[in-house]
Amino acid sequence: MKKYMTLILVGIIVVLSAVLVGVLTFMKNQPPQQRSFQPLVEIKAMEPDSSKWGVNFPNQWNSFQKTATNNIDTTYGGSSQFSWLTRDPRQVTLFAGYPFSKDYNDDRGHANALVDVRKTKRLNLSHEDETKTTHATCYSCKSSDNPTLWAQMGMAQYDKMFFDEMTPKINNSIGCANCHEAGTMRLIVTNPALDEALKAQGKDWHTFTRQEMRTVVCANCHVEYYFKGDGKYLTFPWANGTNIDQIIAYYKDSGFKDWVYPETNTPMLKAQHPEYETFTAGSTHYNAGVACADCHMPYTRDGAMKYSSHDVHSPLLNPQQSCGQCHTDVDYVVGRVNEIQDQVAKTKQSTEDAIIDAISAIKLAAANPKADAKLLDQARELHREAQFKWDFVSAENSSGFHNPEYALKILAESTNLARQAQMLAAQSVNDMSLLQTGTYYQTAK
Amino acid sequence: MKKYMTLILVGIIVVLSAVLVGVLTFMKNQPPQQRSFQPLVEIKAMEPDSSKWGVNFPNQWNSFQKTATNNIDTTYGGSSQFSWLTRDPRQVTLFAGYPFSKDYNDDRGHANALVDVRKTKRLNLSHEDETKTTHATCYSCKSSDNPTLWAQMGMAQYDKMFFDEMTPKINNSIGCANCHEAGTMRLIVTNPALDEALKAQGKDWHTFTRQEMRTVVCANCHVEYYFKGDGKYLTFPWANGTNIDQIIAYYKDSGFKDWVYPETNTPMLKAQHPEYETFTAGSTHYNAGVACADCHMPYTRDGAMKYSSHDVHSPLLNPQQSCGQCHTDVDYVVGRVNEIQDQVAKTKQSTEDAIIDAISAIKLAAANPKADAKLLDQARELHREAQFKWDFVSAENSSGFHNPEYALKILAESTNLARQAQMLAAQSVNDMSLLQTGTYYQTAK
Repeated sequence: MKKYMTLILVGIIVVLSAVLVGVLTFMKNQPPQQRSFQPLVEIKAMEPDSSKWGVNFPNQWNSFQKTATNNIDTTYGGSSQFSWLTRDPRQVTLFAGYPFSKDYNDDRGHANALVDVRKTKRLNLSHEDETKTTHATCYSCKSSDNPTLWAQMGMAQYDKMFFDEMTPKINNSIGCANCHEAGTMRLIVTNPALDEALKAQGKDWHTFTRQEMRTVVCANCHVEYYFKGDGKYLTFPWANGTNIDQIIAYYKDSGFKDWVYPETNTPMLKAQHPEYETFTAGSTHYNAGVACADCHMPYTRDGAMKYSSHDVHSPLLNPQQSCGQCHTDVDYVVGRVNEIQDQVAKTKQSTEDAIIDAISAIKLAAANPKADAKLLDQARELHREAQFKWDFVSAENSSGFHNPEYALKILAESTNLARQAQMLAAQSVNDMSLLQTGTYYQTAK
Repeated sequence: MKKYMTLILVGIIVVLSAVLVGVLTFMKNQPPQQRSFQPLVEIKAMEPDSSKWGVNFPNQWNSFQKTATNNIDTTYGGSSQFSWLTRDPRQVTLFAGYPFSKDYNDDRGHANALVDVRKTKRLNLSHEDETKTTHATCYSCKSSDNPTLWAQMGMAQYDKMFFDEMTPKINNSIGCANCHEAGTMRLIVTNPALDEALKAQGKDWHTFTRQEMRTVVCANCHVEYYFKGDGKYLTFPWANGTNIDQIIAYYKDSGFKDWVYPETNTPMLKAQHPEYETFTAGSTHYNAGVACADCHMPYTRDGAMKYSSHDVHSPLLNPQQSCGQCHTDVDYVVGRVNEIQDQVAKTKQSTEDAIIDAISAIKLAAANPKADAKLLDQARELHREAQFKWDFVSAENSSGFHNPEYALKILAESTNLARQAQMLAAQSVNDMSLLQTGTYYQTAK
């Protein structure tokens, strides 16, 4: 009898041990959970001073502050404020007549956004010629004071002000209030332009999951936008959708131009950092459910605490921590990124050469009073589209990696359009000399 | 005392159970092992009859036989023998003057290779004009009789024979002897052209790992090749390397042409299925250590037996088995393949339009006796290069998926070259009408 008791006892212990091992293994494999927290201090709604939020969230705040000094470069990007015009002098030609041809530096981290926008030579603060004067709209993506200001005065009023009129009201660089709701800490859309652009597509971000919001809050700023009308109203050109052809169709319908190209008289568009549009256009990571924050704000440990790093920068600077969240073969994936960026960078340069050939041809045609106006206008339209497509890839801050096939397909289209623009320009003046290629290398020193 | 004994007993059992669970888990996670086997029958060296090998390897043989009937299409490829000329009539223009413009069907499976090559209308069996007569070289990738024949007569002698002279010696479609050494069953290079091409790059396949051989044996056939000299000696153009620009440089140096384009008088190159060159050019899967066989011959279970399926076809036809060897999210990865192939297919069509515009222009220029010969020759050279680049992607059997960025970069270059060819043609005769675009849509019905 005692023998049976012992066996039963052994059996029970084995089963219990197995169950315990199973439960522990299961728990170990669960993703880190959002922990409820007891705030030490209460944060008022839209508090612009991030250091106050930092009392409750010291890890997030400490990591955010690193964006002030972690200004390191990768091969094709990074945060050192290097000059694109020095690195790729073709861009001086491509942006001729527009402030980007005078001053076009790569961005530094979030904590530097405010000081850097005030320093850029692209600002024109003279009020004498109102059409050339920078509006407060330029502050839209630079400060955690914005949510309060937008709430107080509305975006339309904000955007009508001049940049330097707004300056005294703006004291903080990008910060907590740009993406978080005080109290709940949930991720929110704070930029009215993003809210409106989503609504125009029938989307309501209030219904999005937290994982979706970990991408959408980046679209508060990391998007293509323009200043609409005399009021310089911040607008995302997304009414047709966020695909490049939908954006081009939008700009065509609206007749918008950023500037007129000198000597060719072409109404041009400048693309801005369309990271959100590129990443969400069916990229491999987006389709796999990855959010911007998964790579750019990877989970980090401080002792037993796990938090999202707020030292936002290129994952190439900490691939083990960033890519390593999902990939075990980090050296391999970094090699892939390098290979992709090399291919995109090389293709981009060929596209630039083709666009500059088109510009050279259109310049000569436009200078000829006998030029066929219709053909010349067609050439201008193709140059405008070719350059916007190229710029959509070039100004996008991933050298194509956010969506490699999309970037390369767009560059192929851009090259084709640029060559067709050149041919139309030659036809408009019946002058074969406009068909020469490699004109950049002839004009450049 | 008995109480302690019971506790010690319990402890021992728990520890033993844990060790057992650990060992079983470890064993379960090991990759399938190559089992040693006892051959039922002995196979003679280079045995051309695959059914004899099938006695020892019934699973491999049964699965191979399915290639006779598993002729199913995917969106962009497959094994149904559909006509590329019907599906994409631009190719009739692109291959004008060459047999591919008359008959260009997609391939069926390995078991059909022999019957299909004998049926193609691309064969010209008349010996009257020897330069136009098909040589036995065309059998090089179609039969398991080849290793024996190459051993008996040498490849030079084999290739000098005419196709129909060789026909009586060829009785078996592609089979075991094309990739395996009888007895050891190890993977081997059997095509002398591959052996020579590797040697030309200083590579010796005898030193390759088994995993490397699971890609290299496919290069017995799935490569770019040409018939060298009057002896129609099968040659892979790899002396400079297998990158497309290295191959183009090789063909330029050798002065080789596949045919002369009618009315333009351009010496053209036809690309053949460069799957090996494309996949190994830094593709994501190749760099990750994946071999052709991992996706195209996935491990399959027959009861407790595990074997490589020899029913070689597109992984899109059995993604769960194929992609699912590594990827848990098979629906997602199939979605990615579709998206990539859509982008490549669309870009490819734009490239075709550009090349046809170049052809139209060069035709008109070549018909003009006053054409500037030097400019016209430059136009021809760019057309030749543009079309080979396009064809390198188009003839490659993955619609770009084997290496998406590489394919799209090559198409972008091809489009650029085609437009430049068109411009040179127009310049050569000083005729603006040669710059029109979309000529394919004007000439096509």
